[in-house]
Amino acid sequence: MTKVRVTVWNEYRHEKLHQEVADVYPQGIHETIAEFLGKDAELEVATATLDEPEHGLTDEVLNATDVLIWWGHMAHRDVEDAVVEKVAKRVWDGMGLIALHSAHFSKVFRRLMGTTCDLKWRAEGEKERVWVVEPSHPIAAGLPKDYFEIPLEEMYGERFDIPAPDEIVFISWFAGGNVVRSGCCYRRNQGKIFYFRPGHETFPTFFQEEVQTVITNAVHWAAPNKGPKLEFGRSEALDPIQ
Amino acid sequence: MTKVRVTVWNEYRHEKLHQEVADVYPQGIHETIAEFLGKDAELEVATATLDEPEHGLTDEVLNATDVLIWWGHMAHRDVEDAVVEKVAKRVWDGMGLIALHSAHFSKVFRRLMGTTCDLKWRAEGEKERVWVVEPSHPIAAGLPKDYFEIPLEEMYGERFDIPAPDEIVFISWFAGGNVVRSGCCYRRNQGKIFYFRPGHETFPTFFQEEVQTVITNAVHWAAPNKGPKLEFGRSEALDPIQ
Amino acid sequence: MTKVRVTVWNEYRHEKLHQEVADVYPQGIHETIAEFLGKDAELEVATATLDEPEHGLTDEVLNATDVLIWWGHMAHRDVEDAVVEKVAKRVWDGMGLIALHSAHFSKVFRRLMGTTCDLKWRAEGEKERVWVVEPSHPIAAGLPKDYFEIPLEEMYGERFDIPAPDEIVFISWFAGGNVVRSGCCYRRNQGKIFYFRPGHETFPTFFQEEVQTVITNAVHWAAPNKGPKLEFGRSEALDPIQ
Amino acid sequence: MTKVRVTVWNEYRHEKLHQEVADVYPQGIHETIAEFLGKDAELEVATATLDEPEHGLTDEVLNATDVLIWWGHMAHRDVEDAVVEKVAKRVWDGMGLIALHSAHFSKVFRRLMGTTCDLKWRAEGEKERVWVVEPSHPIAAGLPKDYFEIPLEEMYGERFDIPAPDEIVFISWFAGGNVVRSGCCYRRNQGKIFYFRPGHETFPTFFQEEVQTVITNAVHWAAPNKGPKLEFGRSEALDPIQ
Repeated sequence: MTKVRVTVWNEYRHEKLHQEVADVYPQGIHETIAEFLGKDAELEVATATLDEPEHGLTDEVLNATDVLIWWGHMAHRDVEDAVVEKVAKRVWDGMGLIALHSAHFSKVFRRLMGTTCDLKWRAEGEKERVWVVEPSHPIAAGLPKDYFEIPLEEMYGERFDIPAPDEIVFISWFAGGNVVRSGCCYRRNQGKIFYFRPGHETFPTFFQEEVQTVITNAVHWAAPNKGPKLEFGRSEALDPIQ
Repeated sequence: MTKVRVTVWNEYRHEKLHQEVADVYPQGIHETIAEFLGKDAELEVATATLDEPEHGLTDEVLNATDVLIWWGHMAHRDVEDAVVEKVAKRVWDGMGLIALHSAHFSKVFRRLMGTTCDLKWRAEGEKERVWVVEPSHPIAAGLPKDYFEIPLEEMYGERFDIPAPDEIVFISWFAGGNVVRSGCCYRRNQGKIFYFRPGHETFPTFFQEEVQTVITNAVHWAAPNKGPKLEFGRSEALDPIQ
Repeated sequence: MTKVRVTVWNEYRHEKLHQEVADVYPQGIHETIAEFLGKDAELEVATATLDEPEHGLTDEVLNATDVLIWWGHMAHRDVEDAVVEKVAKRVWDGMGLIALHSAHFSKVFRRLMGTTCDLKWRAEGEKERVWVVEPSHPIAAGLPKDYFEIPLEEMYGERFDIPAPDEIVFISWFAGGNVVRSGCCYRRNQGKIFYFRPGHETFPTFFQEEVQTVITNAVHWAAPNKGPKLEFGRSEALDPIQ
Repeated sequence: MTKVRVTVWNEYRHEKLHQEVADVYPQGIHETIAEFLGKDAELEVATATLDEPEHGLTDEVLNATDVLIWWGHMAHRDVEDAVVEKVAKRVWDGMGLIALHSAHFSKVFRRLMGTTCDLKWRAEGEKERVWVVEPSHPIAAGLPKDYFEIPLEEMYGERFDIPAPDEIVFISWFAGGNVVRSGCCYRRNQGKIFYFRPGHETFPTFFQEEVQTVITNAVHWAAPNKGPKLEFGRSEALDPIQ
């Protein structure tokens, strides 16, 4: 069986600047994600970070990536526009993209949405309850119940300025009174995109089993199909015009 | 200007059986709804109730109804199947339908959805906060903020077994920990359907200004367009087949 | 690996009544479909037909079916309502359903759509060109180009009275001047439904490679996920209401 | 009644360069569109063109525009990026946008879609038949039948690389064997977008009554609602977190 090649991209700044983040993710968020994905024998996992040359996303890396996972927060502006365009093009050509948490505001995600992707937020730490609204979706497979709880998370709330998702898998409830569409699927030409809301850097969200299940499912869902060859541009008539 | 003809249908049983409901809606829920709709000069409003002959929905009434509002709860089973089929047929032919609160479980709504329309519920009275998730939708027009609160309501929560709505206008947060898609648009042939969640019989929800705004907007949205004449069935070739 | 259990249901009347159909499908359409599906080692294929007891769809059969394929045309009315309800319930509980061609008018499909499912038609035999409009969809995987042609087919055309599909995979062009949404995905609670338009009984459509690819893909797509356990009904508060 | 303020933007180059275009639209495509829209007493219509200062889209003009109609073809690259960003921002803030024909490839439309918006094309002149697939949509109101024909048009065909539209109102058939989603609705925050396919510069498409009906309907549909005030950013808890 051909493995799905996953690259986990992390900004990897918070972990180096803030002890409270390093305490939770001593090797960086990317390594925690890579570790649980690595337990899936059908996946082949690598990592890349912002401060590597070309942000670790050389043509060689991108061309060998089936699904790209993106986590970024404080340094969205430091991502070079040329890399953003390359990633967008790869998505259009079939690479899956999983945007986690604050990646809602990454250049890459906003480029592919065509909206501001702005929202309400509150970083006080509160309970998030993630409700499954589309139980037949492969991204919800294997979850034990129709909701799961994350004890402490940053709040992201509506109005979340995204295009109406092709499919909404999850909607989150927050203790402080907000809701948000927290599991959102999009297609962009040959590529699939999943936005998954949880994952603030100061909380151990990525160690939680349900969160790992969702991200692992999303990788399989977003992996490229062997889709038909598309031809754009000038096209001869297939049937006689008169 | 031709007025939009609205018929407000109510089961009208709770109000007669339970004093606590009669205290809130002494004339019946239908009269409260008819009263605030009647203030809109572009609407012409009538009412109908379950215990009238043919449930008040004779051919004459239905054929003169542009938008039907439906409230029912304890007596869904008492609605005759023949009337259900007539209402469904009128929707397919262009009549708008607005299903309120417990009408999620009405025969009419389930007939038009093709699902069970089941959900979680809890009738203890708790705060509902209705969040606008599609601010450009005409049903959200005129609301002052991107949310409004109903102090006490019955809870309806996900998983709500409806088809993925064509458009989700509202998502509700409940104090007890639940969320639900609470403003849902559907098209069924020439007819439009809006499901709006609030409106339990023991609470004065239909007297609240934001709720009245939403229902009034929904009536205008669901009013029939002068759509094209459709022809189904055997059809001659429009172009030479060879 | 657990196999996906497929039951191919066929009305199986045309083949016995009309020589021109028997010439194309001497063993019945169901056997032709079962044969090509049987080449997929991950599938376990059985058949059922209208004139068997309980239409071949006993509880035992339905409970052991992961994906049901449905072909019917001249005898939709002979399908018992009790069986229709059982099939609908199984779909809500997770069984996939693939409705082929004239199954648009089957009781089962209409029950699950909530519309008339009416359309334009013309049975003269003309070229159908099936265009892929969602190339990243798993149902389009493995198709060589972004369209394929069926030399002779019955025409089904818009206005096709279905709910707006959750996903449109194919749109068909017909020589006589019509178009139709010909590959339509729906979710109904835990079940997935795919409508695929081609497959008139007088043409060898089900022997065509691209058609076999699409149906095989659809079976895999519609196979049940191990979705979360859903709980409907009375629900305790998960968080303190005050 | 407050009028809807429409600005019709045209590249206005073809008409000055090619006699065959000037023969059809001697005053420019924008003047033809402005003329028929001007017959609607609820609209107030102005025009703007590429070669005016700031492309005729100064802040003053944009801020006084409720719906912007965009036609461009040969000079997409000459549109300044700063103007593109200003138009996108106005759409997010509620301005409607109607992209006509070759505007599928305009910077503005692609910016708001997040895809390449590429497609197949053939400029030989052939029959286009526009089929109504969503008859209850206000953009289809007043059309006499469920299709209309344009005798000669440029072909645009699938695969059309757009996000799955929120609503598909029309699908076109072309004599040469192609189909395309030809009437596509999107929401982008507070703004609505309609893409309408017909309108090649060498054909008198904009003089055709059905086309004028569709564009006039689209202007009314895309006009801003008085939507709720949105607040993004840091948000206090609305309910006690513990």
